[in-house]
Amino acid sequence: MFAIDLNSDIGESFGVYKIGSDEKLINYITSANIACGLHAGDPIVMNNTILIAKNHNVSIGAHPSYPDLQGFGRRNMILSVEEIEYFVLYQLGALYAFCRSNNVELKHVKAHGALYNMASKDINIAIAVANAVKKFDDKLIFVGLSNSKLIEAGERFGLKTAREIFADRMYDENGFLVSRKISGSVIDNIDLVIERAINMIKYQKATSINGKIINIKGDTICIHGDNPKAKDLVEYLREAFKRNNIDILPLSEIIKWVF
Amino acid sequence: MFAIDLNSDIGESFGVYKIGSDEKLINYITSANIACGLHAGDPIVMNNTILIAKNHNVSIGAHPSYPDLQGFGRRNMILSVEEIEYFVLYQLGALYAFCRSNNVELKHVKAHGALYNMASKDINIAIAVANAVKKFDDKLIFVGLSNSKLIEAGERFGLKTAREIFADRMYDENGFLVSRKISGSVIDNIDLVIERAINMIKYQKATSINGKIINIKGDTICIHGDNPKAKDLVEYLREAFKRNNIDILPLSEIIKWVF
Amino acid sequence: MFAIDLNSDIGESFGVYKIGSDEKLINYITSANIACGLHAGDPIVMNNTILIAKNHNVSIGAHPSYPDLQGFGRRNMILSVEEIEYFVLYQLGALYAFCRSNNVELKHVKAHGALYNMASKDINIAIAVANAVKKFDDKLIFVGLSNSKLIEAGERFGLKTAREIFADRMYDENGFLVSRKISGSVIDNIDLVIERAINMIKYQKATSINGKIINIKGDTICIHGDNPKAKDLVEYLREAFKRNNIDILPLSEIIKWVF
Amino acid sequence: MFAIDLNSDIGESFGVYKIGSDEKLINYITSANIACGLHAGDPIVMNNTILIAKNHNVSIGAHPSYPDLQGFGRRNMILSVEEIEYFVLYQLGALYAFCRSNNVELKHVKAHGALYNMASKDINIAIAVANAVKKFDDKLIFVGLSNSKLIEAGERFGLKTAREIFADRMYDENGFLVSRKISGSVIDNIDLVIERAINMIKYQKATSINGKIINIKGDTICIHGDNPKAKDLVEYLREAFKRNNIDILPLSEIIKWVF
Repeated sequence: MFAIDLNSDIGESFGVYKIGSDEKLINYITSANIACGLHAGDPIVMNNTILIAKNHNVSIGAHPSYPDLQGFGRRNMILSVEEIEYFVLYQLGALYAFCRSNNVELKHVKAHGALYNMASKDINIAIAVANAVKKFDDKLIFVGLSNSKLIEAGERFGLKTAREIFADRMYDENGFLVSRKISGSVIDNIDLVIERAINMIKYQKATSINGKIINIKGDTICIHGDNPKAKDLVEYLREAFKRNNIDILPLSEIIKWVF
Repeated sequence: MFAIDLNSDIGESFGVYKIGSDEKLINYITSANIACGLHAGDPIVMNNTILIAKNHNVSIGAHPSYPDLQGFGRRNMILSVEEIEYFVLYQLGALYAFCRSNNVELKHVKAHGALYNMASKDINIAIAVANAVKKFDDKLIFVGLSNSKLIEAGERFGLKTAREIFADRMYDENGFLVSRKISGSVIDNIDLVIERAINMIKYQKATSINGKIINIKGDTICIHGDNPKAKDLVEYLREAFKRNNIDILPLSEIIKWVF
Repeated sequence: MFAIDLNSDIGESFGVYKIGSDEKLINYITSANIACGLHAGDPIVMNNTILIAKNHNVSIGAHPSYPDLQGFGRRNMILSVEEIEYFVLYQLGALYAFCRSNNVELKHVKAHGALYNMASKDINIAIAVANAVKKFDDKLIFVGLSNSKLIEAGERFGLKTAREIFADRMYDENGFLVSRKISGSVIDNIDLVIERAINMIKYQKATSINGKIINIKGDTICIHGDNPKAKDLVEYLREAFKRNNIDILPLSEIIKWVF
Repeated sequence: MFAIDLNSDIGESFGVYKIGSDEKLINYITSANIACGLHAGDPIVMNNTILIAKNHNVSIGAHPSYPDLQGFGRRNMILSVEEIEYFVLYQLGALYAFCRSNNVELKHVKAHGALYNMASKDINIAIAVANAVKKFDDKLIFVGLSNSKLIEAGERFGLKTAREIFADRMYDENGFLVSRKISGSVIDNIDLVIERAINMIKYQKATSINGKIINIKGDTICIHGDNPKAKDLVEYLREAFKRNNIDILPLSEIIKWVF
């Protein structure tokens, strides 16, 4: 038996600016990573997004970022580890306020963009993020790239960790995501994406961009909401999971199952 | 027997910019209103300020503002009531994260600057602020200008309210603060400030800028930290309170006493 | 003989956030008001937008705003007149840099959103804006709501003024725009919009929201790019203008013609 | 005969936050690098600072930065070279507006903080900055760390370059500034600072942090305004320069002299 959580980054609109198709995507996912105002989102968007997730019974997570609205949190920035810890705490609290006011639980945390990528490779940054999560609420599930320093840091701090896999993004042979700027790093072919997803979940294997077989375990798979084909992709994925006896479960169920 | 809380706005530095003399002032006050990042403060400053307050056993409150860093939250802005509610929630949560990570309690909320002043006069704005507080934590003490719409809104929502008085600022005959831009609105003479404070606390009276006697009850008195004489003023005030048998107590004690 | 300029607010994207359909609209207009980074736009967007306008031979203007990215410059804010003057100067210079680096001329200035509306009614705000324009470059054409304080201020400072009219927005009987929040204030019916445009240009008359006939002269008509029907509307308008012998000319030609 | 320009970063206050002692320092320097709003400064501060410099007949330069107010522009950020070019252009224009409105000339450009340091070592970043300057106004003097990629890029683009030296900061053996975070990188001893300044100007030599003699030529020396002893230091420096027959001249004179 296999099981996987489907997570997506939502709530990334800002003021009059709309992005993503949260209302559609929410029907297909089990976990929502919600922007906290520093790369996207604002208090109004955050409240609305919490309500959408609550109404669809989707697990709510915080999606903290470097402070970089104009760069959508995708630019590498050099902050001290103290700054990173406190910026993550700030965002956890801000999102938590809307969970609390809407009587819904905050369940997980997944860093965004450049913070996620830098923390995947740098144990000190990963520890800063894990530290913030532990200090805020040590029952939160800590989502990080499978095999990365984020997972290592989460485990070191005794957090429940969830290993994230990407079916529509290429890995290098060390298991890191290949930058979006590199040609071929984003996989458009839906059949290939599905095949990669099934292989990762059932056989814990993926083929890297340079053709090596890498080992990779996943508790949750990322659905990119900014992909115009996101709705189609996730529908096909769900069908394929059904055919392959892969259950789709929220992170809290998956993690219970793993431990 | 009389009692009063001494509150001050602290944690208003930002990045390399230092303002106020928090480390000195903290020795003399019983409640600290801490900036939440939208008019002042940043995650590093917020964490440090929480630690300073905790180490001096000073009650911690949130000091939410309109989003206006360059104007220090002192500019009137027209936001919808929903926006105000969600902006306050955002800031409550952000500050709460640092309370939680440092194992200290969030005790009260006091709006800042233009938000405080506009909410004092406009019941809809006051309700938006009170609504945010109630939804986040209905045990928080809700601080507002004595006699103002803030207190009315807090009471309407069943919150524990604390009436704030200002000894170094002039009131108009309706009990509103006279704008800092008006000459004579800020009282520099320490003896006069002390006399006004004693009269407000013992006799619930103050003289307005145009010479009228107004009725005013206070649970907490504001100590302006940006005043260069703040430390002297608060020392003299404390001595005068002692001579007049006015106890200095944290808000939570004052409010218990009132109810 | 009649003539009119067609202006539109473009370059209002920000970072990853796209808004409007600048590449389409640019084919139909004669003047572009380009956001300067404080309500929308960023340095990359500004440079790209200047290039689009240059390539289509469309006159370039600055579109300065209150500093309010999250509110898209649509929130009323109370700034001092000095602040307004300097904020406008800042934005004029910022946009000018991209004109200069791309060898194209900055031709006009039109305030955005809440700044436009507040300046239309308040002569001191209007003067602050006009003052900034005059100090930066007194040959810039100063665009303002027809009959408003903006036009009065521009004339008082000896600037070349251009009176803006709105065919898809309702006026009150004093000639001010009715707020977007009021039902019926935005006119969706394309035939009605065209009829109103023709009447304003040929007969200098419009019907207010409460049925009064108001006098109104126009040098330029605003095409709202955020309207999904913008492209259709402007095509029909251009045809109607042709049938009615109304020339479509850039502002600099219109103004020459008026003086 | 020797000559040197004295430059200082001023106008780095923001809103209510005051930093530096611009009014004092301005009496001792010949060139002012004025913040453009992205790491410090705001439109009001920029206008006031231009006036201070104008009144003291001090040459005015732009001091553009990465967009990072909370980090004071001192954090390394990874922007594309296009972004860097356009961010610099934006800031050049913004500052230029206040020069133009106050009838004073913009004379030079010196990048700030992390942008300065990263451009010193990375020719692509240096070219992006030089490109912006050249496109905006190729008569501007381009200030960069002596021996650095900034100077190389400026020369490659045919700009008039000015080599900056630091007497109160340690160099590594490659001529780069040692980070402020490294102990011993900032030199407090005024006598040593003066000795280093004289040696650099008269003999084009400095001793690196690890004791090597490096060759270094300077057209302008940086006076750090955030140093509490800045005023004393600059007074002593001026006296020492007099004793050593080193003329103090504005950059435009120095550069004329060099070419």
